[in-house]
Amino acid sequence: MAALMGQMMQMPLMISSVIVHAARHFGDTEIVSKRAEGDMHRTTWKATELRSRKLAQALARLGCEAGDRVATLAWNGYRHVEIYYGASGSQLVCHTINPRLFPEQIAWIVNDAADKVLCFDLTFVPLIEKLAPSLKSVEHFVLMTDRAHMPAQTSIPDLRCYDELVEAESGDMLWPEFDENTASSICYTSGTTGNPKGAVYSHRSTVLHAYASALPDALGCSAKDVILPVVPMFHVNAWGLPYSVPLVGAKLVLPGPHLDGKSLYTLFESEKVTFSAGVPTVWLGLITYVQQNQLKFSTFRRTVIGGSACPPAMMRTLENDYGVEVIHAWGMTEMSPIGTVSKLKSKHDGLDAESRHKLLEKQGRAVYGVDMLIIDDDEKPLPWDGKSSGNLVVRGPWVIAHYFQIERSPLVSVEGRQWFPTGDVATIDEDGFMQITDRSKDVIKSGGEWISSIDLENIAMAHPAVHEAAAIACAHPKWDERPLLVVVRKPDAQASEADILGFFEGRIAKWQIPDEVVFVDELPHTATGKIQKLRLREQFKGHRLPTA
Amino acid sequence: MAALMGQMMQMPLMISSVIVHAARHFGDTEIVSKRAEGDMHRTTWKATELRSRKLAQALARLGCEAGDRVATLAWNGYRHVEIYYGASGSQLVCHTINPRLFPEQIAWIVNDAADKVLCFDLTFVPLIEKLAPSLKSVEHFVLMTDRAHMPAQTSIPDLRCYDELVEAESGDMLWPEFDENTASSICYTSGTTGNPKGAVYSHRSTVLHAYASALPDALGCSAKDVILPVVPMFHVNAWGLPYSVPLVGAKLVLPGPHLDGKSLYTLFESEKVTFSAGVPTVWLGLITYVQQNQLKFSTFRRTVIGGSACPPAMMRTLENDYGVEVIHAWGMTEMSPIGTVSKLKSKHDGLDAESRHKLLEKQGRAVYGVDMLIIDDDEKPLPWDGKSSGNLVVRGPWVIAHYFQIERSPLVSVEGRQWFPTGDVATIDEDGFMQITDRSKDVIKSGGEWISSIDLENIAMAHPAVHEAAAIACAHPKWDERPLLVVVRKPDAQASEADILGFFEGRIAKWQIPDEVVFVDELPHTATGKIQKLRLREQFKGHRLPTA
Repeated sequence: MAALMGQMMQMPLMISSVIVHAARHFGDTEIVSKRAEGDMHRTTWKATELRSRKLAQALARLGCEAGDRVATLAWNGYRHVEIYYGASGSQLVCHTINPRLFPEQIAWIVNDAADKVLCFDLTFVPLIEKLAPSLKSVEHFVLMTDRAHMPAQTSIPDLRCYDELVEAESGDMLWPEFDENTASSICYTSGTTGNPKGAVYSHRSTVLHAYASALPDALGCSAKDVILPVVPMFHVNAWGLPYSVPLVGAKLVLPGPHLDGKSLYTLFESEKVTFSAGVPTVWLGLITYVQQNQLKFSTFRRTVIGGSACPPAMMRTLENDYGVEVIHAWGMTEMSPIGTVSKLKSKHDGLDAESRHKLLEKQGRAVYGVDMLIIDDDEKPLPWDGKSSGNLVVRGPWVIAHYFQIERSPLVSVEGRQWFPTGDVATIDEDGFMQITDRSKDVIKSGGEWISSIDLENIAMAHPAVHEAAAIACAHPKWDERPLLVVVRKPDAQASEADILGFFEGRIAKWQIPDEVVFVDELPHTATGKIQKLRLREQFKGHRLPTA
Repeated sequence: MAALMGQMMQMPLMISSVIVHAARHFGDTEIVSKRAEGDMHRTTWKATELRSRKLAQALARLGCEAGDRVATLAWNGYRHVEIYYGASGSQLVCHTINPRLFPEQIAWIVNDAADKVLCFDLTFVPLIEKLAPSLKSVEHFVLMTDRAHMPAQTSIPDLRCYDELVEAESGDMLWPEFDENTASSICYTSGTTGNPKGAVYSHRSTVLHAYASALPDALGCSAKDVILPVVPMFHVNAWGLPYSVPLVGAKLVLPGPHLDGKSLYTLFESEKVTFSAGVPTVWLGLITYVQQNQLKFSTFRRTVIGGSACPPAMMRTLENDYGVEVIHAWGMTEMSPIGTVSKLKSKHDGLDAESRHKLLEKQGRAVYGVDMLIIDDDEKPLPWDGKSSGNLVVRGPWVIAHYFQIERSPLVSVEGRQWFPTGDVATIDEDGFMQITDRSKDVIKSGGEWISSIDLENIAMAHPAVHEAAAIACAHPKWDERPLLVVVRKPDAQASEADILGFFEGRIAKWQIPDEVVFVDELPHTATGKIQKLRLREQFKGHRLPTA
């Protein structure tokens, strides 16, 4: 007998339906932006949906056809939201570019994606003036501003004014419905090695990710919230918030280029932000400002921290001193990005603060939709016992199957199914809480045993004299590799190597304590603020440990 | 240029993946059932997932093939959960039957669906003994109990023991992946006119509905919850809770056939239930029990009330006297069922209690995924102004396109798209809050103006002497139709017709006040507890109003 088919409406999952929903049900709910122009701007979901439709018409008038890429070099702002919906909603592909990359990388990415239109904020006029001649595919340069802010003179060919393009249109169009597997947006990974690689999201993957990420045990977004994504819209679509916020009808607050502690604090307070999201570095700046000025948050209650592991001390400061719940999350560009979120279960209700924190410091349990496994080097699954550590692999409808224009599949086969190898080394406990112990390429292999560079760094960072620290593998004649700790001291701090190494005693197994501490003035960082371990390893390539 | 396709994993949305997720991440989280056998039973998501796999093997061994229907006549219990997953997960179709229907209707439905296997609780042995000869398609009768409870003698042919079937299998199988549009389950509407009609859900519609219904502004389910669906699993899949509960990893408490106030209260307290769901009638019984015994709830904090409009007085009692938040929801069998949920936005934060309640008494705003419109008799959309009332139509991926085996499409075309006509008359306000004013066939058309029968009933129900009331249209020579109120008084209550009519003064426009009150001993109800207005209208067909 043939399978019986369901008899439900065949409605594709369309990104445009998210903003239509917001316009209908939350028409007067605000989007507040601090603009690159320097001023504040207020609009609504209803107005933004209309302007997104006008933008779709303008892009069609510029000659864009299904599948064409519309690139952005832009901060978090309402025009960027319009491009997310206007481009994707009309079957074009929104390609967000990280402006913090090196100019050559930006040019490489634009050419690789063959972007047809490039929209950019005022901030980036000098950059585009420099890059324009090398951006071969770009037919239209669009400055995301109004007529008054257009530069009098520029070398950018035929520079268009975004607001003029939008305002010339009627908005008189219906969002088309098409195959939900159509590409909606592209993000390039800021690969630490080789060229950046593009993840091509679809309408289906984006909408499913938006549902899952808004769940109570994920980000838990609601129409009661005022949400400020500090995480940039060029960084894996601001973790999907420009989709999940209108899906639930929350107020959206966008900080533009102003991410310093003072600017953020002012915006949090004036707009009554309840919920935010960002990488640890950003919270460091905000916490420092709030501490120095002895301030409190009036409405701010929850924040997602991801991008890299949240330092335990930061989690405690936010919770204990400011009453802000830290939602520790993990994901990656290749996962749209959300994979796991650390939220407790009812069985944890009676836990003491210390055990509770130990759990919350883990990267958390998989959001429904994401499957995960840890496997050994032979691709055999390892037990979920909280101790066995292995290579983390994932699958799910918002995980990539391929990189853009790269034929070779990145997937590995485990037990007859295809999985994406995350490049992370992790443990998973009986309750499904995953904890990253290292990047597979950063782990230090000492005499056949693995030492987590992250564990060493976390201990070092807890020392009062340490501003920043990186643990890397250093060649060793007997042990193959031994840990070397590279430390930036706080200004005026005097700690010696012996002080730092002594601090490790009792905090980790003796054989895992670094063999040496080297003090430096600063550590190399990637465009997204992560420490460049690869560069650091190269720098210390010939280094001879005192134990060697 | 052709559209660019996304490059994400092609993973079908499978119901089996929900319970696999629960088994992995919430393996030791409990499912507690009060059984038809009379005792309590405790199991876990991990054990239930394994038993579901064994059941899938047992069903295959019985000869079931893709598309075959496995019917249930069962209360809310763990074995029923196993059938939900074991049948759907192995590409069979789980067909839940409402045991409160008349026996002839049950037989009609089994034959219409051509059910191959019929699983039923102990309670229903006498019923099946009576019906078995007329159930033409059923090849296997399975009693959902253990060997010890199997009847010594029965006329049911070749009666199987559910636990024996399951326990004979190894569980050694992988859940198959197949087209997500495959049928997963069937529910028949308890049509008040004509034969019942089947809604055929798919894996896709069920998983999307589970995501949407667990959102913070819908049911808001989390791993912190202990959830007791009072709404039966044969009533639109208990509003999807058997899917959304394992999706979020909550503890599930299932009351079996014991739905009286005392049994429910005892279970709420012993299992620390935080969240429940049911029709107003059930809450009436629970509230009465709690009031009479001067009890309080220790952990119960939220409940969804749907199925029919929640009487405002009930909402206030639950909130004010017991601290239980009432989540007023609306949906229908044809919608899986959730359409709207009444949850406030941040703009409502400052509202006084009265205005807040007025909003919460509405059926609420559409969950993302559901589109809705109100249209006039010419199928023209009406404004969302909170005043214009029209026929409510809906669309979405968990809304039916067809009824099972009925060729004629139930859909209507509005503005170039297909919509399902709900048969409800409603208003929608500027904030997207929908309010049902009547069933389109129950509305009373007096001189070209519409009078809501529900409005009249709500007023009547607020009178202290009224136990139950129904307002129906009665033919009138001048006005075409005028309202007649049929009332059941509370025991010992003495209110006269004049008392009741006087109570309407100032509560509704004068011309909408009923022309007459008729007192009766009881009102006719459907199998799901709704008043049978059609039967009532037939009963009063020749009735002559005093105003006629």
